[in-house]
Amino acid sequence: MRKQTTQVKVGNVLIGGNQPIVVQSMTNTDTVDVIATVKQCAELSKAGSELVRITVNTEEAAQAVPRIRTQLEKMNLDVPLVGDFHFNGHKLLSKYPDCAQALEKYRINPGNIGRGNSRDDKFSQLIDIAVQNNKAVRIGVNWGSLDQELMARMMDKNNHLDEPREPTDVMHDALITSALDSAQLAEKQGLAHNKIILSCKMSGVQDLIKVYKDLSNRCDYALHLGLTEAGMGSKGIVASTSALAVLLQQGIGDTIRISLTPEPGESRTKEVQVAQEILQSLELRSFTPTVIACPGCGRTSSDTFQHLAKDIQSYLKDSMPVWRTQYLGVENLNVAVMGCVVNGPGESKHANIGISLPGNGEKPVAPVYEDGVKTVTLKGDNIAQEFQTVVQNYIENHYS
Amino acid sequence: MRKQTTQVKVGNVLIGGNQPIVVQSMTNTDTVDVIATVKQCAELSKAGSELVRITVNTEEAAQAVPRIRTQLEKMNLDVPLVGDFHFNGHKLLSKYPDCAQALEKYRINPGNIGRGNSRDDKFSQLIDIAVQNNKAVRIGVNWGSLDQELMARMMDKNNHLDEPREPTDVMHDALITSALDSAQLAEKQGLAHNKIILSCKMSGVQDLIKVYKDLSNRCDYALHLGLTEAGMGSKGIVASTSALAVLLQQGIGDTIRISLTPEPGESRTKEVQVAQEILQSLELRSFTPTVIACPGCGRTSSDTFQHLAKDIQSYLKDSMPVWRTQYLGVENLNVAVMGCVVNGPGESKHANIGISLPGNGEKPVAPVYEDGVKTVTLKGDNIAQEFQTVVQNYIENHYS
Repeated sequence: MRKQTTQVKVGNVLIGGNQPIVVQSMTNTDTVDVIATVKQCAELSKAGSELVRITVNTEEAAQAVPRIRTQLEKMNLDVPLVGDFHFNGHKLLSKYPDCAQALEKYRINPGNIGRGNSRDDKFSQLIDIAVQNNKAVRIGVNWGSLDQELMARMMDKNNHLDEPREPTDVMHDALITSALDSAQLAEKQGLAHNKIILSCKMSGVQDLIKVYKDLSNRCDYALHLGLTEAGMGSKGIVASTSALAVLLQQGIGDTIRISLTPEPGESRTKEVQVAQEILQSLELRSFTPTVIACPGCGRTSSDTFQHLAKDIQSYLKDSMPVWRTQYLGVENLNVAVMGCVVNGPGESKHANIGISLPGNGEKPVAPVYEDGVKTVTLKGDNIAQEFQTVVQNYIENHYS
Repeated sequence: MRKQTTQVKVGNVLIGGNQPIVVQSMTNTDTVDVIATVKQCAELSKAGSELVRITVNTEEAAQAVPRIRTQLEKMNLDVPLVGDFHFNGHKLLSKYPDCAQALEKYRINPGNIGRGNSRDDKFSQLIDIAVQNNKAVRIGVNWGSLDQELMARMMDKNNHLDEPREPTDVMHDALITSALDSAQLAEKQGLAHNKIILSCKMSGVQDLIKVYKDLSNRCDYALHLGLTEAGMGSKGIVASTSALAVLLQQGIGDTIRISLTPEPGESRTKEVQVAQEILQSLELRSFTPTVIACPGCGRTSSDTFQHLAKDIQSYLKDSMPVWRTQYLGVENLNVAVMGCVVNGPGESKHANIGISLPGNGEKPVAPVYEDGVKTVTLKGDNIAQEFQTVVQNYIENHYS
């Protein structure tokens, strides 16, 4: 059961309430490099990122932001941009009102605003600018940059208790307190309740689960969910998925970002793909037809089978940008590519379209099932090509 | 809280009860090809697969099994082998007693044993052989090969109810009933309660979650957990992780297998790696030092940063086979590789060893933290190499 949160509008995108969970991502180009950043924003947006965050760390970066926005509009890409601010956000947003205007949301980190008395001033400046420009704000706490003064105060207080809590529990509480106190301060300053999104990111899966469960219990703000510093390769995918699956299954999280470290040369869009795969696997949203494929074993002629599964998957993925506009609901299609008779016919019958390839020692024929009924039996060297035709025909007949 | 199940001994491996969750996998070589199968069993075992399943589908395969076992023993690999039987298991195990002896567990699929009266005979034969050889049995139900007679009976019965249940619910119930009825039959036949492991695999994440929660409530058998036909690439990893994270977090599952379809050329060991990553991310077991790495953004000099994160991760992974034997507990080490000052110092201090690389516009130095204390500041072209030396020294000093 999805937790009911306050809906926030970020440009043309709605986050929270009963809205579908929003996928977002962040560029890793130098924001000053307008061409590279526009190119990556476009790639991320086309891959399915419904918000794109860019770092705004210097005066040059702040000056680049409106140019990036303009360029994206020329390309008919209205994906809202989020500015990521640390240390000097108050200065940059004051000095560059076009930047403040071009962004739809400001991410501010209460741990990286400053210390002591000047902190509140800077925070107020940031919030004032958001109010004046009617922009949303994410108060994004991260345990790698937790407000150290708050943490010290809370630890001190804990040490004076008759039964002090575990330091880890105090730290979790400090993350949440930092977010909630900052949100309260922002509201006092005039920022509307429905302009605020919160996040409290950690890099440990169990830490993140604990913190978000507690955070979700303690407020009704829309929540931005993500495991910070998840890492590289399958480790990053697995850690992010573990954490988010547990929380999303409990109805927690209104927008997600997957913080993968790209392998050298890997596209930044991988994090968008994984975000979509998480939501689709949990049946929260559909983005692309699902390919169910058996893992192969000693019964399958592995090589043929693996190539066919890969060909079908690539074909579906590559076709989606066109299909999405032509065939309403095609993202709900599911296709099964199975390697032998053990589960092949059964799993194929459960799918919209399924093919059961012949295993070792079986007759070299591949029955194809459509909505549970065997419609054709393929054989010979062109099975992959012929199966694609079957899929294409099915889609034309069912989703036109 | 881990669900308390009955502990099962499979060779030298304990499954269930309060034992650590066991990682297993399955070969995709032709079992008849003894050399290829031995080679892959060895690879899977070395990668961390604590049981290895091989298909036993033909007489030739059954004859190959004892030779595979002998060969593995010559290589000092005592990983228990599990035989995967469908359709003709009763015949093969009767005719080839050396095969029955060489395997430590038989996987039998109640949906693929036969129909009508002959079904019970064949099932009895299988169970008798397990009892005589003192072997464990997995009763492995799969929705792609669900016992169609049972399913029809349950659907019929449902249709006669005043308030029939949803067909999907009946199908879920039929999977569980198939497993539990078969287990009961096996116990009647003399197989001990602590020789039985159950599984009810499905390819849909929410289906699997529902079925295993119900199955876990209805019995105390040790459970083999896995999403069947998960698919290829990150889709397969994400779907498997989503399903298993939700269930493992609820204490359900005693042994896991990740059914990934390998991409052409990809190593079968990937499924073992992902299984370990799932258990480690949820803090259920530790296998390898953890590398936390930020995803990079417009603040990081992405290329340098990505290469460093990858180098460190590869270095740790490649060193583990040796370290595991030399340094007790080294798998609990965590290393942070961070790209700029935003979360770099903070996250680095939380790790055992952390490095905070300079972001764009920062002073080109990389402070290194050990257990929260800055110990050295690296600069120049050899940061990666020097950081590896720091890691190596830390390990020698802390885990010898």
